[in-house]
Amino acid sequence: MEEKLFNLLKNIKPVDLSLKEKAYEHLDNLTKPPRSLGKLEEIAARVFAIQEGKVEPYPARIYTCAGDHGVVQEGVSPYPQEVTRQMVLNFLNEGAAINVLCKTSQVDLKVVDVGVKGEPFPQHKNLIQQKIRSGTGNIAIEKAMRKEECLKAIFLGIELASNAQKQGIKSLGTGEMGIGNTTSSTALYCAFLNLSPEETTGAGAGLDNQAIQHKIQIIKKALNLHSKTIKTQDPLEILSSLGGLEIACLTGLILGAALYKMPIVIDGFISTAAFVCAYKLEPKIKDYAFFSHLSAEKAHKQILEKVGAFPLLHLDMRLGEGTGAALALFLLQAAANIFNNMATFEQAGVASGK
Amino acid sequence: MEEKLFNLLKNIKPVDLSLKEKAYEHLDNLTKPPRSLGKLEEIAARVFAIQEGKVEPYPARIYTCAGDHGVVQEGVSPYPQEVTRQMVLNFLNEGAAINVLCKTSQVDLKVVDVGVKGEPFPQHKNLIQQKIRSGTGNIAIEKAMRKEECLKAIFLGIELASNAQKQGIKSLGTGEMGIGNTTSSTALYCAFLNLSPEETTGAGAGLDNQAIQHKIQIIKKALNLHSKTIKTQDPLEILSSLGGLEIACLTGLILGAALYKMPIVIDGFISTAAFVCAYKLEPKIKDYAFFSHLSAEKAHKQILEKVGAFPLLHLDMRLGEGTGAALALFLLQAAANIFNNMATFEQAGVASGK
Repeated sequence: MEEKLFNLLKNIKPVDLSLKEKAYEHLDNLTKPPRSLGKLEEIAARVFAIQEGKVEPYPARIYTCAGDHGVVQEGVSPYPQEVTRQMVLNFLNEGAAINVLCKTSQVDLKVVDVGVKGEPFPQHKNLIQQKIRSGTGNIAIEKAMRKEECLKAIFLGIELASNAQKQGIKSLGTGEMGIGNTTSSTALYCAFLNLSPEETTGAGAGLDNQAIQHKIQIIKKALNLHSKTIKTQDPLEILSSLGGLEIACLTGLILGAALYKMPIVIDGFISTAAFVCAYKLEPKIKDYAFFSHLSAEKAHKQILEKVGAFPLLHLDMRLGEGTGAALALFLLQAAANIFNNMATFEQAGVASGK
Repeated sequence: MEEKLFNLLKNIKPVDLSLKEKAYEHLDNLTKPPRSLGKLEEIAARVFAIQEGKVEPYPARIYTCAGDHGVVQEGVSPYPQEVTRQMVLNFLNEGAAINVLCKTSQVDLKVVDVGVKGEPFPQHKNLIQQKIRSGTGNIAIEKAMRKEECLKAIFLGIELASNAQKQGIKSLGTGEMGIGNTTSSTALYCAFLNLSPEETTGAGAGLDNQAIQHKIQIIKKALNLHSKTIKTQDPLEILSSLGGLEIACLTGLILGAALYKMPIVIDGFISTAAFVCAYKLEPKIKDYAFFSHLSAEKAHKQILEKVGAFPLLHLDMRLGEGTGAALALFLLQAAANIFNNMATFEQAGVASGK
């Protein structure tokens, strides 16, 4: 299965960034001072390069992938583990923030059970029931999952991208739900980016200072336990040891977006960890990704700088679910409308600058 | 007319910010960690306080006010003065960035000729033809306008807010068009906020370094010429001496929004100058205002910090027209949808945090 993945990754083409010049030629002819729409134009130009000659991010879809984390038994979250399951039901009943923001931004939402603890969920039109295992192992005392399970989750993510493309979806967003997953993500950042738990561990869903100190100790324990694996810098081994099923699935979704030449909007702190895993597997994916927002979670800023990303929104959000991606996809659509619907200087009879 | 204005301003009520607590009581019951939507929740809470118990920013309208500037004869813009008129026609033909972004954000747009040089425009359903004079005087050698003209423009802005309210509009956005108006705005910032032209003068619509140096000299000349007026710190006198007709009209619009208890979204560099004028006339207006974005125009960051404002978007935009306000109004609507449409913990059967 590992070989199959690496063969698939060979098919990922780099984004032809030279196409951006062609996009800017058009943008510079529109009735505004050149480049005066800043990052909105940058978005349009890069989508043009990804989609090879058009800027058409909609219809867009967010996959919100849910999985449980064994490490919650160490007391790293202020919420009980059952909340993962309860929130999935809330997503299906359209009561959560991600439902509201997807509707606001006119983005399609699918919810994926890739590893929620317990029974499968009842059938639902917006649910993809593909549980690979019933939550991960506790990374402080064991591997999160077997490599085969990790690969299954990655392949599921790639398949989600493929299905979206077949259904006419033009761009993707990442979302996640999993009590305990900031712990897992923080461990992944430390392992991949050579950061310390002290500088990267934040409040997650709302820990106080004492609880953050405890979380740091748990992450240290996990990093010590898996230190040999971390030294190899083997992305699959690290993701299997410290990751989560939803993080592995999003890693696959990001790889799949690149494989099928779709722009993908990365949500926040946890999704960025999936981005780092995907990047470590295949660096070419980077130019397919847009970073929706700067999370209020400590260290997100530093991590985004490390991966050379600029976040579009600065709203101190730290919810996850895909909420940042939903708002940022709207900005992609705004950029597309600018590119496609503005008048040129000639059409409007407006004098261009000296 | 001046007395009439000051009598009107006495009717502006402060926003009852204690209502924000009530808004947060509701927000904290929704299925998300408390405050995890950051500034989106802050927006919802303040709109709740402004609208005294509801969060309903839509339908929203942007007034894009256009006026010409005598100072362009000093060579402070890379665009000829005719572009103001040409762009107004472009707005009416729906070819400009502001048209595209208003449509994207489902915001109503009205274009106001408050001082474009030359003849009135042909009638149009989206045009408000209220030219007060045919462009301002050259601030480097004379006053921009007489105080009566300035007051007329302010009253027009107040009337626009009143009309919007009568027509069922729930929130407003500012927009402007006027070749040369970064020069006028920069002069206003220097006069009101005790800043130097060197630290505040930027590229405007796209000047090179040499041209920026020239623009600094022109602004210095204007500040010298009107130094006695500046010393008085009389807002109306300063606005009459250094401002623009569109800036005075937007000053009125901001005052009007506060008078009629409507949230108002301030666009970028020029609109923020109008905000400063309105604030100097009546500081209570501040809590009615939201700042849409951090402009790429030099000094906007420093100025926003000086007025204690946080911008919602960081997209390096520097176009004006209301383009930042159009995107930010969408964020107000997103915040409203969160407030109004999410499930509570009880409704969703989700456990709240420890």
